[in-house]
Amino acid sequence: MGTNVVTQIGILVNNIDEAAQAYADLLGVEKPEICITAAPEIASTKYLGKSTLARSKQAFFKVGPNIDIELLEPDHEPSTWRHDLDTYGEGIHHIAFNINGMTKVVDALTQKGFKEIQKGEWIGGRYSYIDAKETLKLTLELLEFDK
Amino acid sequence: MGTNVVTQIGILVNNIDEAAQAYADLLGVEKPEICITAAPEIASTKYLGKSTLARSKQAFFKVGPNIDIELLEPDHEPSTWRHDLDTYGEGIHHIAFNINGMTKVVDALTQKGFKEIQKGEWIGGRYSYIDAKETLKLTLELLEFDK
Repeated sequence: MGTNVVTQIGILVNNIDEAAQAYADLLGVEKPEICITAAPEIASTKYLGKSTLARSKQAFFKVGPNIDIELLEPDHEPSTWRHDLDTYGEGIHHIAFNINGMTKVVDALTQKGFKEIQKGEWIGGRYSYIDAKETLKLTLELLEFDK
Repeated sequence: MGTNVVTQIGILVNNIDEAAQAYADLLGVEKPEICITAAPEIASTKYLGKSTLARSKQAFFKVGPNIDIELLEPDHEPSTWRHDLDTYGEGIHHIAFNINGMTKVVDALTQKGFKEIQKGEWIGGRYSYIDAKETLKLTLELLEFDK
């Protein structure tokens, strides 16, 4: 991957307002703004190889020099967020690494037997979720920020 | 808690040798030594208020300036590790914060409605697992290292 620094812990929730308030209370910070992933025409989200309109509400908490907790409340369109929330319930969905060269890194992981389950874009970058449940016992997210 | 820096991501696994090798391969590092939590006479582990002989194999990977991934393969004595592994399967068990003044912090969290589910000691410190599934959607670990 070219890095071993975890930059995000992603947590699926049913009610992001309540969960964000609970984290704000725990961490002693203001409740952050709730935002939403990019619109479909920007995100071009693909889940299991198919285009999807799925979006997710998001809230971020800084929990270290290089790391955020991301709360995610997905809509009901097909996505790894909705699938895992419906299948496993609320809880941690992924840990993320910031990488450079998305295609190359995804190809390298695919060759090692991992599978890309969802990808999308935002203004300024792109992400990929990699199913690593069998060996690493979790989902990886790769994040690439444009320079 | 007096901190908002996450210092550990704890992951339950059935086979720590295999999982540690998979993480070593992903991160491009040597497979670390597999260690084990302190013996019962040092750990004085309590799970749901009762003493238990439970121990867990452990392996650590540095994934940031202040943060490790901890792999945990518990034995079959009663513990939050064994309970969650049997109930939810392999995957992330907790995120940890390093705190000072364990009793005070546990008391403060208990007053906020959280519940301590397990605690124990090692030579040089102590830990407490706090059930925060209802509001934070995960288990917190508090770690206190003696100065």
